[in-house]
Amino acid sequence: MTLDDIQRRDATDPLAGFRSEFTLPEGVIYLDGNSLGALPRATAARLADTVTREWGQDLIRSWNTADWIGAPQRVGGKIAGLIGAQADEVVVADSTSVNLFKLLAAGLKARPGRTVILTEPGNFPTDLYVAQGVQALLPDVTVRTAPRETLLEAIDDDVAVVMLTHVHYKSGARFDMAAVTAAAHARGALVLWDLSHSVGAVEIDLNGAGADLAVGCGYKYLNGGPGAPAFLFAARALQADLASPLTGWMGHAAPFAFGDDYAPAPGLDRFLCGTPPILGVAALEIGVEIALRADMAQVAEKSRQLTALFIDRVEDRCAGLGLTLASPRAPEQRGSHIAFTHEAAYPVMQALIARGVIGDFRAPDILRFGFTPLYLRHEDAWNAVEILREVLVSEAWREPAYQVRAAVT
Amino acid sequence: MTLDDIQRRDATDPLAGFRSEFTLPEGVIYLDGNSLGALPRATAARLADTVTREWGQDLIRSWNTADWIGAPQRVGGKIAGLIGAQADEVVVADSTSVNLFKLLAAGLKARPGRTVILTEPGNFPTDLYVAQGVQALLPDVTVRTAPRETLLEAIDDDVAVVMLTHVHYKSGARFDMAAVTAAAHARGALVLWDLSHSVGAVEIDLNGAGADLAVGCGYKYLNGGPGAPAFLFAARALQADLASPLTGWMGHAAPFAFGDDYAPAPGLDRFLCGTPPILGVAALEIGVEIALRADMAQVAEKSRQLTALFIDRVEDRCAGLGLTLASPRAPEQRGSHIAFTHEAAYPVMQALIARGVIGDFRAPDILRFGFTPLYLRHEDAWNAVEILREVLVSEAWREPAYQVRAAVT
Repeated sequence: MTLDDIQRRDATDPLAGFRSEFTLPEGVIYLDGNSLGALPRATAARLADTVTREWGQDLIRSWNTADWIGAPQRVGGKIAGLIGAQADEVVVADSTSVNLFKLLAAGLKARPGRTVILTEPGNFPTDLYVAQGVQALLPDVTVRTAPRETLLEAIDDDVAVVMLTHVHYKSGARFDMAAVTAAAHARGALVLWDLSHSVGAVEIDLNGAGADLAVGCGYKYLNGGPGAPAFLFAARALQADLASPLTGWMGHAAPFAFGDDYAPAPGLDRFLCGTPPILGVAALEIGVEIALRADMAQVAEKSRQLTALFIDRVEDRCAGLGLTLASPRAPEQRGSHIAFTHEAAYPVMQALIARGVIGDFRAPDILRFGFTPLYLRHEDAWNAVEILREVLVSEAWREPAYQVRAAVT
Repeated sequence: MTLDDIQRRDATDPLAGFRSEFTLPEGVIYLDGNSLGALPRATAARLADTVTREWGQDLIRSWNTADWIGAPQRVGGKIAGLIGAQADEVVVADSTSVNLFKLLAAGLKARPGRTVILTEPGNFPTDLYVAQGVQALLPDVTVRTAPRETLLEAIDDDVAVVMLTHVHYKSGARFDMAAVTAAAHARGALVLWDLSHSVGAVEIDLNGAGADLAVGCGYKYLNGGPGAPAFLFAARALQADLASPLTGWMGHAAPFAFGDDYAPAPGLDRFLCGTPPILGVAALEIGVEIALRADMAQVAEKSRQLTALFIDRVEDRCAGLGLTLASPRAPEQRGSHIAFTHEAAYPVMQALIARGVIGDFRAPDILRFGFTPLYLRHEDAWNAVEILREVLVSEAWREPAYQVRAAVT
């Protein structure tokens, strides 16, 4: 296989046209869209319009005239189309962490007599920390962890909610959503899926899997911008049984009646809390709309191709240079990012970034490379490996400047 | 007094120069900055730079190079300068509603043996609803209300947190922060102040009042944009005793160590939860910086002048036309907005808006007019009253179109 072959593959890529919808800096191969997605070209104009016309000219009236008030449901409904959900099963709100808290508390209350949140060690930290916060706050609640090999066996009659991240943030390992959900249901537990590292890059069918609850991130493969609002999902049949612990006015049945007593809004609206962050939602909507125009089966297929090509090339061209694959080899068992361990992972990544290949480091020894199908080419995966090889062969990463840790690593 | 006199007052207004820092649409007298502040001229360029350069070009690196990671503390530190707090006593995070939840739960835990949240009926709905949500979530916690006339007497040994809105959202009535705080402390309770309707428009001295906890809104007098991030304050001496119930990764002592066990960050950083909303924080920072350049004593004095002028003129020019003042008459007892009742308040406000005077309606019968000292002139208050008089004298508000309720009223 040669670079020519790879470029021919790019030439026939049915998603190739999407690349031009993103701003990608010159000289950069961006393999960190799993952490912060790239900027859609349409976002700046949309934000300028939201700021200058909607806010600046129409001011408070835009809550009605620009439908700011309906933005959480409108954009949530669009995200639903990416994750196999109905439009009234998804709202945009708050952060992933806050949404985890809401749904954990609601899930526990919906399973009276059960007091355990079950998760796996090494889950994304905020998922673990939020669950631990629920444990510290609510009497009798316990967070139990079990490694994924024995996870299903750990679901007993005490487990109210099984909380898992669909695609693991470090390894990229992917759960079989349908199988785990079915096993949990057989034992009477709800499942809460964190889709942060999968939405927009791999196929997700929440309704098909019979999923109960989910949260997800707007700033990774959805390209919603830094700290974009997050979303949450609750299956329609479950919604009436769920109470949000964060009972802000936007989740009230009649927020503009300004009454003294809380009454939850019907359906999922009750999981709104404060005033929606309009600038963030506007930027997120642009990213979601691009993803909606892509065929998710094609996106997922290209994700498998890109990641498989990257693994093959690394193991070929960087053999003997200290890298070990830390992601599942089988494409159906992983998401759209690939992890390799290296004993000098931090400085190696710094040297790569200095050469325009942006991935990231995850403690203690992981080099992580994300492949966003909408804006990456097979050629990018190929070229990134050549630069990685050069960094390792030359030992360029030994330069002192690359050893200095940044605040955010 | 004539319009000439008023225009002369504007000509010598020491804050007059600030008006040109805002975009105000032609033909509009904007008296709703207490609900959504106007757009600063610098915001569009700041957001364009944040989007196009920081996000688009520098991508993930901006967490370090643009100090996105330090934004909650940086902007919080600036807000501290507006409310009589130290820089390390304020962070920007989440929404006002979510921050109320965090501080109520933390305050209850910091006063073991005490189980009551005391507030007043008719407080801003989200404050009441969030407190009721805490009551529903945590065993033994009770929300008690007492009208402000008997509020201090209602603080007994069971009260953990007295939660009050500094300036009432409807009437504009202002609490004496120092007196109430001292009375609560004498009875062993903490006080949580909601500054949403006062920050940026009236003098606030949290440290001077010995205040414990506070939250506030970014999109009213701080001009941070629709749904701007909120802020929270906790007095330095209290911070080590406070545990956030929302234990997201950004509040961890070492978020980028990615460990499995939660450990709170030192100081106020523990009240951060999810990834900070960078676009919203960038817009908010512009609004806060403008307010910081103004002399808060001059701002508060102009607020008193504008509101007093408005009351005087309404009671003079609209006498006998069905309006009754529903705000305190004494300037030191109110904030920067004025409420009048009218039996047809909704259509009257619609007719006013159609004529370019934008205030708002609050159920059931309140016309509310906000006076933002940084961009309003005395002439605006004068002219708004003339238009109000014309609407009432002509009974223009009887037109059927003005009776139709919008989604957001």
